[in-house]
Amino acid sequence: MTVRAAVAGASGYAGGELLRLLLTHPEVEIGALTGNSNAGQRLGALQPHLLPLADRVLQETTADVLAGHDVVFLALPHGQSAAVAEQLGPDVLVVDMGADFRLKDAADWEQFYGSPHAGTWPYGLPELPGARAALEGSKRIAVPGCYPTAASLALFPAYAAGLAETEAVIVAASGTSGAGKTPKPHLLGSEVMGSMSPYGVGGGHRHTPEMIQNLSAAAGERVSVSFTPTLAPMPRGILATCSAKAHEGVTGESVRAAYDKAFADEPFVHLLPEGQWPATASVHGSNAVQVQVAFDAAAHRIIAISAIDNLTKGTAGGAVQSMNLALGLPEELGLSTIGVAP
Amino acid sequence: MTVRAAVAGASGYAGGELLRLLLTHPEVEIGALTGNSNAGQRLGALQPHLLPLADRVLQETTADVLAGHDVVFLALPHGQSAAVAEQLGPDVLVVDMGADFRLKDAADWEQFYGSPHAGTWPYGLPELPGARAALEGSKRIAVPGCYPTAASLALFPAYAAGLAETEAVIVAASGTSGAGKTPKPHLLGSEVMGSMSPYGVGGGHRHTPEMIQNLSAAAGERVSVSFTPTLAPMPRGILATCSAKAHEGVTGESVRAAYDKAFADEPFVHLLPEGQWPATASVHGSNAVQVQVAFDAAAHRIIAISAIDNLTKGTAGGAVQSMNLALGLPEELGLSTIGVAP
Amino acid sequence: MTVRAAVAGASGYAGGELLRLLLTHPEVEIGALTGNSNAGQRLGALQPHLLPLADRVLQETTADVLAGHDVVFLALPHGQSAAVAEQLGPDVLVVDMGADFRLKDAADWEQFYGSPHAGTWPYGLPELPGARAALEGSKRIAVPGCYPTAASLALFPAYAAGLAETEAVIVAASGTSGAGKTPKPHLLGSEVMGSMSPYGVGGGHRHTPEMIQNLSAAAGERVSVSFTPTLAPMPRGILATCSAKAHEGVTGESVRAAYDKAFADEPFVHLLPEGQWPATASVHGSNAVQVQVAFDAAAHRIIAISAIDNLTKGTAGGAVQSMNLALGLPEELGLSTIGVAP
Amino acid sequence: MTVRAAVAGASGYAGGELLRLLLTHPEVEIGALTGNSNAGQRLGALQPHLLPLADRVLQETTADVLAGHDVVFLALPHGQSAAVAEQLGPDVLVVDMGADFRLKDAADWEQFYGSPHAGTWPYGLPELPGARAALEGSKRIAVPGCYPTAASLALFPAYAAGLAETEAVIVAASGTSGAGKTPKPHLLGSEVMGSMSPYGVGGGHRHTPEMIQNLSAAAGERVSVSFTPTLAPMPRGILATCSAKAHEGVTGESVRAAYDKAFADEPFVHLLPEGQWPATASVHGSNAVQVQVAFDAAAHRIIAISAIDNLTKGTAGGAVQSMNLALGLPEELGLSTIGVAP
Repeated sequence: MTVRAAVAGASGYAGGELLRLLLTHPEVEIGALTGNSNAGQRLGALQPHLLPLADRVLQETTADVLAGHDVVFLALPHGQSAAVAEQLGPDVLVVDMGADFRLKDAADWEQFYGSPHAGTWPYGLPELPGARAALEGSKRIAVPGCYPTAASLALFPAYAAGLAETEAVIVAASGTSGAGKTPKPHLLGSEVMGSMSPYGVGGGHRHTPEMIQNLSAAAGERVSVSFTPTLAPMPRGILATCSAKAHEGVTGESVRAAYDKAFADEPFVHLLPEGQWPATASVHGSNAVQVQVAFDAAAHRIIAISAIDNLTKGTAGGAVQSMNLALGLPEELGLSTIGVAP
Repeated sequence: MTVRAAVAGASGYAGGELLRLLLTHPEVEIGALTGNSNAGQRLGALQPHLLPLADRVLQETTADVLAGHDVVFLALPHGQSAAVAEQLGPDVLVVDMGADFRLKDAADWEQFYGSPHAGTWPYGLPELPGARAALEGSKRIAVPGCYPTAASLALFPAYAAGLAETEAVIVAASGTSGAGKTPKPHLLGSEVMGSMSPYGVGGGHRHTPEMIQNLSAAAGERVSVSFTPTLAPMPRGILATCSAKAHEGVTGESVRAAYDKAFADEPFVHLLPEGQWPATASVHGSNAVQVQVAFDAAAHRIIAISAIDNLTKGTAGGAVQSMNLALGLPEELGLSTIGVAP
Repeated sequence: MTVRAAVAGASGYAGGELLRLLLTHPEVEIGALTGNSNAGQRLGALQPHLLPLADRVLQETTADVLAGHDVVFLALPHGQSAAVAEQLGPDVLVVDMGADFRLKDAADWEQFYGSPHAGTWPYGLPELPGARAALEGSKRIAVPGCYPTAASLALFPAYAAGLAETEAVIVAASGTSGAGKTPKPHLLGSEVMGSMSPYGVGGGHRHTPEMIQNLSAAAGERVSVSFTPTLAPMPRGILATCSAKAHEGVTGESVRAAYDKAFADEPFVHLLPEGQWPATASVHGSNAVQVQVAFDAAAHRIIAISAIDNLTKGTAGGAVQSMNLALGLPEELGLSTIGVAP
Repeated sequence: MTVRAAVAGASGYAGGELLRLLLTHPEVEIGALTGNSNAGQRLGALQPHLLPLADRVLQETTADVLAGHDVVFLALPHGQSAAVAEQLGPDVLVVDMGADFRLKDAADWEQFYGSPHAGTWPYGLPELPGARAALEGSKRIAVPGCYPTAASLALFPAYAAGLAETEAVIVAASGTSGAGKTPKPHLLGSEVMGSMSPYGVGGGHRHTPEMIQNLSAAAGERVSVSFTPTLAPMPRGILATCSAKAHEGVTGESVRAAYDKAFADEPFVHLLPEGQWPATASVHGSNAVQVQVAFDAAAHRIIAISAIDNLTKGTAGGAVQSMNLALGLPEELGLSTIGVAP
C-alpha cells in the first residue's frame, strides 16, 4: 500500500515534525504541502532541516490543492479544521492536529475556546483503554494535545486500576516549540534561555478539560485536574509530574503492578526500571514515552512522571501512529523509539 | 561598623556567590578564604568571575585560619559544620549554609541524613512568622535550603491565614548549580541542556522535612508535603509550583488578601500584580522573590508560585540577609532586588 | 554631585541594562523614562527584573519629557538620535547608545547604513589610545557597538605595538540579546537553543567599518577586517576570536609584553594569566573584559580573544563608563568587574 | 547481506550515536557491545535513549568478545585501537573512531599525541578528492575528527580549485558532546550554559595537523592552519567559520562555481542557496553537512562556513558512511539528511 498524504500547515513546527516522520515512513508518499502566509515559498527556507524537501514550494490551503490524497493532515490554527475537513469528503482520512475535535462536551469546548463546538472525532491516543478500537478504520482522527498526551499516559493506569482519589495535580514543563513559531516577545531566545516560568495557571489552560476527559474515562467517575504548565528553556520535550492521593490500602507494590499491566504490551510506552527516572532528552525526536511511578507513603500519594517529545509523540508522531491504525498498517510503522541524545 | 568575614568553602558555587555579594557589602571586609582539595590555588582559577579576588589564595579549613573574624560562613559538605563551629567560640557569628542545623526534629534529621543530629540553630528565613526575632542578635544561623526557601515563601501565607488543607503538593524546577560543582555524569552540560528530569521522587529529598517544618509552623498543625524536584536546563533559579486544597468558602479575594498582607512590608518578596507570573530570569543574581497566587475554583485549590535565584536568596543572599539581622545592620544592606536579565 | 538622567528607549534590552546599572550608581538619580509603542505601560510589565522601578510608567520620547536632565541616554533605533539630540541643547550630556555618531567617515556610514551621515561624536571606548582625553568634559558621546568593543580591545594592542600585519580576521559569537527585543522568527527560543549560526557574512555587518576605524587608528595605517558574527545559544555575552599575521621576528614574549603594557592600568580590562582563557560567563552582568593572547608560531599568527557582556561593557556599561569620564566622576563609579556566575 | 557489527566503547557519546544509527541500518545486526569501567551494566542505564537496546549488557573489551563479527567499531580512548585491531585479523572490517590512524606523518602524530605512531589507515571522509577509491573494499578505516570533517569540507573546494592562498584561519564552535562523557568541572551544565569559551588556542589542538593534511592534499602544497576551537552552550553541533585570502582575480562567481562543482554529486553535503546560512540545528542528528561560501571583496577573503552534527557526520555517521563504502553497500544506506529541529 502506498498512501499519498497532504499536509496543510507545513511551515509550522507541527507540520515540520510531521514531514520529518513521513519522509521515512515506508508506505507514505508526500503530496501537497500548504501554508498560508508562506504560500509560494521554498520549504528549504522555512524548514531548513528537511533537506530532501528543500525545493518543494508551499501552496495555498484550498480544497483543490488538498484533493486527490488518501490522507490529509491538518496543522492549522484552532477553529479552521472543520471547514477544510468538510470539503475533503468522507472517504479521505483526515487527521486533525488541532484541538477542534478533541472534546466530547460542547460546553467545555465553548468555555475554553470561546466558539461553537465543531464535533468530536475518534481520539488519537491509542494507549488509552478502548481507544484503538475507535481508531481502526476511522476516517477522522483528533490528535490529542501534547500536555494531555503526557499527563494522561502518566496517570490513567492509577485511575483505571482504582488506586487514586479523583483529584489530580499536574505540573508540566514544556519546551518552547509547544508555543509555536509565531514570534512573540516572551518566546524570544533571550527571554526563555535561563528561565522557567508558568502560564495559564489556575485552571485556564485549554488542555485541562482534555485531561479531565481522559482521566475521568479511565476512572469511571469525574476526576478534577489542577494543571499548571510551565515553559522550560529547551526547544522540545514535556516532563509531566502528576500525582493524586492514593486510596486507603494502596501500596507501592499495587501501584507498580497497575503500571506494569497497563503498559506491558505497549510499543511506545516504556515503564522504566525502578529507580530510573524519565528525562526529556531520552525521547528527543522519538515517539517513545518514558514513565516512572512512585508511591510516597508519607504523603500517601501516587506520583507518576512521564517524558515525551511534545512534537513527536505529543503531536506528529501520535498523528502517524493513529493514521497507521486507521489505515490498517502496523501501528509502529515509520515511528521510532530511539531518541537523539545527548 | 566593619565586619571581618571568613568563608570556609570558597571554591564551590555557594561560596562563590557569597563572595560576589560580600564584595559589594558596605560593611564587610573579606578575610580568610578556605577550600579543601583546592587549598593553595588562586581564586582566579576557581572563580574567574570574581576579578577583584583573583589573586587571593585558598587556605586550609582550620580553626587557626578561621580565627580572628567577626563572621564565619560555612559552605561545607553536610556533616562538617558542627565540628568547625565548636572551635570558633560563642562570640563569633557562625552562618552555616549547609543543612546541619536546620531541622528541629532529631528523628527527621537521622531519617533523611543518616547521621546523628548536631542541633538546631535560628532559621535564616526572616520572612517566616517570628523568624526575625530569633535571628536578631543571634551568634548562630542555619541558612535554609534553596527549595524550602522557595516553597515556604510561596505557601506559608495560605497556611498562616488558615485557608488551606494540610496536604501540600510542591513541584519545583531548579537550575543545575543547586547540584554543586563536583563533576558527575548526569550534571554534564551535554546531559542537562535540552532536558528536564526529576529526582528524589516520592518523598526522599532531604528538603522535604524542612518544608514540612516551615509549613506546619505556619499552619499550627502538621502539614504533609509531596515534593518533587526537577532539574532544569539552566544554571540558576528555582521555580516552585505549590498547591493545596482550599478550605470551604475560600475565594480568590480571600487568597489575594492573605498574600497581600503577608508580604506588604517585606523588602525582598514581591507579590506580582494579578495576571503577571514569576520567571526565574527576573530574579537572576538578585535576592528578590517573585510570588504569584491563583485560586482555581474548579479544582478548589490554591496555586502559589515563587521564583528565586537558588544561589542568591536560596543560599548566599539569604545568608547575608540573616547576617545583617544578627549583627543589627539594616536587613537589606549589600543585597539587591534587581535581577540580571535577559 | 547628583546627576539626573533620562533614558529614551527604556523598554528594550539596552535601556533595561542601563537602568539596572544606573539604579546602583551612587551619583545618578533616574528621571524620565520613555518608550515609543510602549508609552503608558508600567516598567514592571516590560522589565520585570527591575523591581525598584516596577511602578514607573513610560512616557513618550519628546523634547519636553527629556528636558531638565543633566544626562540623556538615547537607546533608540539607528537614525533617530540626531533629531532628538538637537533639541536637547549643548549643555546637556547626550550619550547615544545607537550607531549614528560612531563613524568618522561619511562614506562608510552611507555605505553601511544607507542614510546621510549625522556626524561624529567622541567615541566611548576609553581604553583606546587617546580616547579618554576626548571624552573628558565632552557633552556628546557615541557609545561603541558591542562587537567593535570586544574586537578592538582584543586586537588594538597588537597594532599599537606594531606587531601585526594589516589584515585582521575576526569571528565573534554573540548572545541573542544583541539582536534586540523585537520578535523575529529566527530569534525565537525554539530556533536559537541548540544552534550556532552565522549572519552578515562577507563584510556586510555594520560593525565592520567601526572595527576598521579603531584598528587603523591604533596601527597608524589602514587595517582591513574580515568579520563574521555568529549567533550563539545564550542570552548575553560576546566571545571575539581575533587574529592577524605577525610581522617577522615577533615572538610570544613580545606579544605578551605588548598586551601587558596596554592593559596595565586599565580598571576594566583583565589580561588573564597565561594558560587561562576568557569565558563569557565570567563577565556576565559585569563591565569587565577578559582578554587572552597567544602566538601561534606554526601559523605565525597572533590570536587574541576577548569576552565581554554585550549589554554591559558592550553597551550600557560602556555608556556609564564614558558618562563618568565626561562628568569628571571616577571612571569606575557604579560599575562592577564582578560577574554573575555560574 | 547482513553485517554483524560489534561496538567497542558503547557507553560513550560516540558509541551511543553509532548504535542509534546502526539500529536503523537495514543491513546491520548489532552484535557485541563492550565498555570498560561500565562492563556488566545494562545499556538502558547508560544510554537511556536507546530503548530497543535497553536490556543489553556491556561486556569487557577483549578479543574473544569482539571475535566473530564482520565489522568492529572502535570508540576507544586514543592509543588503544592498534592493540585491539591487531587481534581482530585482516578479514574483519575495523572502523576506528579514534585518532590513532588518521595522520600520515609520524612526526605530526608524535608532536601532538606524544606517543609512537601506530600507522595510517584509509581516511573516512569520502567527499575529499580521491577518498572514495581508498575506502572501497578496505578492511581498515580511520574515521576523521569532528573539527577536521567540518573544516575540510568547508575549505577544500577553494584549495582544490586553486582559489586561495595557503594560510587558512578556522574558528569553530562545538557542542559539548565533542568533549566526551567523562565528568570534568568545566563541562558541567552550570559552567557551559550561557557561556562561550575557547580552548587549545594557538595551534595546540590535536585536530590541527589533520586539517593541514586534508587542505594541503587538496591544494597540492602545504597549507598552514590557524585553528581556534570554542565550546558552545549546546549539546551537539559544529559551526566552522573558515577563511583564506583569495588569489588575485578571484571573484564571487568563481568561488561559487568551485563550490557548486565540488558538491554537485555529494549525497550529504548541501551547498545552501545564496543568502541562506548554515545552522547547526538544521543538521541535528543528521549526516548532512550544510555549507555556504561568500567572497568578501573588501578584505579579499573567501569565507566558507559549514555546519555538521559532531556526533553524526562528525563521528558515527561518517563511520557508517565509510563502512558502507568499504562493504560495497550504497553509501547512503542507514543514514539520513533530515535534521531533528527545532
